[in-house]
Amino acid sequence: MVIVMVEYASEAHIQQATQKLEDKGFSVSRIVGVNQSILGAVGDKRGIDPREFEILDGVERVHVITVPYKLASREVKPQGSVLRVGNLDLGGQEAVLMAGPCAVEGEKEIFEAAGIVARAGAKVLRGGAFKPRTSPYSFQGLGEAGLKYMRAAADEHHLLVATEVMSVSQVELVAQYADILQIGARNMQNYNLLREVGKTRRGVLLKRGLAATIDEWLMSAEYVMSEGNEKVILCERGIRSFGNHFRFLLDVSAVPAVRERSHLPVIIDPSHAAGVRAKVPALARAGLAVGADGLMIEIHPHPDIAVSDGPQALLPDQFLVLVEELHRIARAMGKRFADEGSTVGMN
Amino acid sequence: MVIVMVEYASEAHIQQATQKLEDKGFSVSRIVGVNQSILGAVGDKRGIDPREFEILDGVERVHVITVPYKLASREVKPQGSVLRVGNLDLGGQEAVLMAGPCAVEGEKEIFEAAGIVARAGAKVLRGGAFKPRTSPYSFQGLGEAGLKYMRAAADEHHLLVATEVMSVSQVELVAQYADILQIGARNMQNYNLLREVGKTRRGVLLKRGLAATIDEWLMSAEYVMSEGNEKVILCERGIRSFGNHFRFLLDVSAVPAVRERSHLPVIIDPSHAAGVRAKVPALARAGLAVGADGLMIEIHPHPDIAVSDGPQALLPDQFLVLVEELHRIARAMGKRFADEGSTVGMN
Amino acid sequence: MVIVMVEYASEAHIQQATQKLEDKGFSVSRIVGVNQSILGAVGDKRGIDPREFEILDGVERVHVITVPYKLASREVKPQGSVLRVGNLDLGGQEAVLMAGPCAVEGEKEIFEAAGIVARAGAKVLRGGAFKPRTSPYSFQGLGEAGLKYMRAAADEHHLLVATEVMSVSQVELVAQYADILQIGARNMQNYNLLREVGKTRRGVLLKRGLAATIDEWLMSAEYVMSEGNEKVILCERGIRSFGNHFRFLLDVSAVPAVRERSHLPVIIDPSHAAGVRAKVPALARAGLAVGADGLMIEIHPHPDIAVSDGPQALLPDQFLVLVEELHRIARAMGKRFADEGSTVGMN
Amino acid sequence: MVIVMVEYASEAHIQQATQKLEDKGFSVSRIVGVNQSILGAVGDKRGIDPREFEILDGVERVHVITVPYKLASREVKPQGSVLRVGNLDLGGQEAVLMAGPCAVEGEKEIFEAAGIVARAGAKVLRGGAFKPRTSPYSFQGLGEAGLKYMRAAADEHHLLVATEVMSVSQVELVAQYADILQIGARNMQNYNLLREVGKTRRGVLLKRGLAATIDEWLMSAEYVMSEGNEKVILCERGIRSFGNHFRFLLDVSAVPAVRERSHLPVIIDPSHAAGVRAKVPALARAGLAVGADGLMIEIHPHPDIAVSDGPQALLPDQFLVLVEELHRIARAMGKRFADEGSTVGMN
Repeated sequence: MVIVMVEYASEAHIQQATQKLEDKGFSVSRIVGVNQSILGAVGDKRGIDPREFEILDGVERVHVITVPYKLASREVKPQGSVLRVGNLDLGGQEAVLMAGPCAVEGEKEIFEAAGIVARAGAKVLRGGAFKPRTSPYSFQGLGEAGLKYMRAAADEHHLLVATEVMSVSQVELVAQYADILQIGARNMQNYNLLREVGKTRRGVLLKRGLAATIDEWLMSAEYVMSEGNEKVILCERGIRSFGNHFRFLLDVSAVPAVRERSHLPVIIDPSHAAGVRAKVPALARAGLAVGADGLMIEIHPHPDIAVSDGPQALLPDQFLVLVEELHRIARAMGKRFADEGSTVGMN
Repeated sequence: MVIVMVEYASEAHIQQATQKLEDKGFSVSRIVGVNQSILGAVGDKRGIDPREFEILDGVERVHVITVPYKLASREVKPQGSVLRVGNLDLGGQEAVLMAGPCAVEGEKEIFEAAGIVARAGAKVLRGGAFKPRTSPYSFQGLGEAGLKYMRAAADEHHLLVATEVMSVSQVELVAQYADILQIGARNMQNYNLLREVGKTRRGVLLKRGLAATIDEWLMSAEYVMSEGNEKVILCERGIRSFGNHFRFLLDVSAVPAVRERSHLPVIIDPSHAAGVRAKVPALARAGLAVGADGLMIEIHPHPDIAVSDGPQALLPDQFLVLVEELHRIARAMGKRFADEGSTVGMN
Repeated sequence: MVIVMVEYASEAHIQQATQKLEDKGFSVSRIVGVNQSILGAVGDKRGIDPREFEILDGVERVHVITVPYKLASREVKPQGSVLRVGNLDLGGQEAVLMAGPCAVEGEKEIFEAAGIVARAGAKVLRGGAFKPRTSPYSFQGLGEAGLKYMRAAADEHHLLVATEVMSVSQVELVAQYADILQIGARNMQNYNLLREVGKTRRGVLLKRGLAATIDEWLMSAEYVMSEGNEKVILCERGIRSFGNHFRFLLDVSAVPAVRERSHLPVIIDPSHAAGVRAKVPALARAGLAVGADGLMIEIHPHPDIAVSDGPQALLPDQFLVLVEELHRIARAMGKRFADEGSTVGMN
Repeated sequence: MVIVMVEYASEAHIQQATQKLEDKGFSVSRIVGVNQSILGAVGDKRGIDPREFEILDGVERVHVITVPYKLASREVKPQGSVLRVGNLDLGGQEAVLMAGPCAVEGEKEIFEAAGIVARAGAKVLRGGAFKPRTSPYSFQGLGEAGLKYMRAAADEHHLLVATEVMSVSQVELVAQYADILQIGARNMQNYNLLREVGKTRRGVLLKRGLAATIDEWLMSAEYVMSEGNEKVILCERGIRSFGNHFRFLLDVSAVPAVRERSHLPVIIDPSHAAGVRAKVPALARAGLAVGADGLMIEIHPHPDIAVSDGPQALLPDQFLVLVEELHRIARAMGKRFADEGSTVGMN
């Protein structure tokens, strides 16, 4: 922590701040300028509230030096993590494609969707069995039946399953069927839930909250990791901003920012940000080009009859065309997508 | 719903949009302009996704007419609700003051705090026994022991108890001790939790999420109310924005906005927005003056040794001085604060 | 400046950063922690780009210590400035009320408006002769004719004149008629214009830009002051944010934030943030209660025929009722409004 | 305009709103629902303030149908514009690369920069001779000398010149030297300046304001175009948002949004958003992949001695490597960059 005293701060105020730093276990050095003193405090003291020093008399401002996360920090693994989920590697040289409908709507639909997903060479089938809906009057998901359909459909096509878990009580059930447990943006700081998925050994896809800073996002990853589960995949899906030309504002700069601070893989979901399918391909391309480790895209065999978010689901043909383009862009960047046929889930 | 067709839209496209509206149960009128047609669709069809129409060929834009909440809407109670919680009325002519420490830290501290709260004429003792902390390594609250201390302290001073509930599994326990169950900003869209507190008959203090629109906030209230619990008190506590001169940006305009759309009472928490105690009085005055039904303010008998958010807690003397000023401002506005001694909790 | 090196930074990298700091004229102290070093650099070097150090090898982050403004800084006048404009004191114990129509629309209208303004005890007549309009096809103001009408109307009622100046070429003209030159939010960083009004000796009402931080706002004040004009009055009028329940989001916390950093007076304009007159009184009360040095409120004798922003103008009767309430709130806070009849402009 | 009346609105209120619409020249149709009426008003009435109707008794909300810009609207040129500037086509099949230093610092430096820019196959040399600086104490640009150096350097390498113009009084001078007049983000709503560049026949590079919506940005383009200059190139350069992981938040979704609403070309400037050079390539790739018509990138032959924004300037070698990658990505998308050697400026 670095404490900047106001100009001409009294010696008593400087002493008081120094004393408080030392009481908290810091070792303090004073730098004396012409009119102003700076106190440099060293010691690995995460979790101290800098405001405790800000409000002291004579203190102008406080700068925190240590990032508040440990396990998620890049310092731990400077080369970055490659996470093994099923037979799939996340975070390595290969980009990973995840796709599927917003919600699992029935057995037939999810098998059809899985077929399209596999045909495009994607490795993970996404779909919601428990749905967080803004309205209590909307369809809330098929629950366990949806999980069963999804697992069977994925297995038939050698895909992994990624699906959302909304509450602590659902974790055990969902973990029986899914390879990757998704934490939705609205639950990014549902700490009880984070701890619970941290107790499983499934992959955890942690979506960024609508108004979360990168550091808050990584702190949520830290909650999961502090329970012993290191398989956290971060997912940028758009933040809240002014303007009416998007559903959420896709923050592509989150990808290089995560890279700089953390060893965890980070993917992009262009569908929720776009809100309508016409804008999904452009954002998907941008997400790949900015350097994401993968993409999660909503598709639907018959989006006009989808019960949820149909307007943002790509049509099967659109998806196949987009994937071709994404493969070409990946090659242009010296990357490739994970090879078809190499993954088997739930191992 | 109102559908604006593009200029010179083809008859086929207009027919297609009309048909889809009728399929969804709307009654459709077509307004023909010089170059452009508008389709006006009437029918109480909440929950239809307007994007289903936006993506149709020939459609320029879609305007939704019906608000998505019913029970929380002002239309239901144009005069506004007065909620009875314990012996306290919320939402009526009298403003309500809630105060207490961020976290319950021990028996002695909470009794001391309750004494200060009562002395100031506040009616509700706040304090966290379960604490949502950004870091998994921070103090997470005393749990049930904290609830017991708080209840006893409140009872001694004839105060109600407001305390946060973070997960479905805590609801039953917390409801045994508290008059008001607080849903934190980070859980505003934790729908399972909203439903669960909706099944109790306690008051529910619903904090606005960091990036929630007024309509999303009211939809969360609707989740609670749809389970049969109408005692929802909204609480503005600051949103996320750019800038470094606040912890969160207090949106005082949320108060008149809620008034216009909903019959529910709305209070302001100036403490989390301010972040440091020096700025709390100014924001508290603004919150009262803008017309809130009450204020929730963090105080601490000894904030320098508080385990959480001490820097934003008012000192006892500051709090008493502020309350005097708030009383004067209330009178200047033709309002008053709830009278001392009139409430008994848990009845 | 404080430079935090990465953990285990090499001696060569620490030397390089130290050398660069010294080259820029800083005096450097090194603080050695267990794994990490900190370089504390002192010296009054405003205007150095901290990113020059951020990008050096081995540097983790850089903290800037010195605020970038000098003349606008509170350090210069710890007690705050009281600015004399006409016979009016701004920034002292008395709050100042400014009111008038959005635009000067004609001689009759502005005289009528001035009468209402004076009757309410306001001291400054506002109104635009040059109007920044979003659309090039909208009414752009009466120009010099409008200035003349406004001056005459203000003089008849012993009011000061505040009016917007949009470009360098208008400054000389507007300064002939106005006591206070208003810089609109959209021009807050129009540096040529800021310098030009800085060359006059009129008051300068500097509106905060829609996306300006407090420090950027004060830097714009510094532009004006660096030309020798210290009469800068800051005006918070709402910032851009998500949500549809306001026109702009009134940031009442800007007032205590300005107080902390600058000696300049700061007022609040509730009208543009509200967007519709029904919400103006609530925001005006909040602005006064948070501690602003004054309020600028749009009124109109006949808002239904106003050429610009009529919907947000208060009706005369509404205004008079509001002013009564504001006086009561001011007294409740131990403040008062500037006394009627004490000011004469253009002296 | 569509006016939604409140439920059970009185016939008198419906009549009043209808009358007011008709007074404004609209033709009105009434749609009668079960409890609620809708008034559909047709007529090409741009510039009417919808709030005039919102504040009428019995009106719940108002939806505006007509976009406020005409000349910038896609309806005018559904296929999109290809703008001819010098020998360069902007907005067609070929992407355009613009590059150069933040500021023109001297003759030698700008010739060196132009050489690098040309070597990379870029077509436009950027650089500031008049610099908008946050601080009045910073370097403000070389003025006309800078323009001369830049023109000569560009001519030597067959490049066009793009440079910022900050005030009305500079337009004539800058237009003598530059092919493209840049309007900075802070001046996006400096209407006098927009009109003035609209009177020239130079290209106008209009940067998006930090807090501008797409519609406001297009309205600013409309200002330029309404003076007869149709050569407006839009440039997204990052908006203001919360978070500290960027300098400005690059909004890549602005590109498809502009495409949908306007026929004007739109490019991306990744440098100001990134703030440090390490993040520029990722954002540049994203900008190209999202579909921009070009990129404007800051480079510097010796960024460590740059007077302004050196930390975000790419090194010459980095730039050449990035351009190779951009070419490959363009080909992957079926696009290409404008061919080397084909442009001559100032024709």
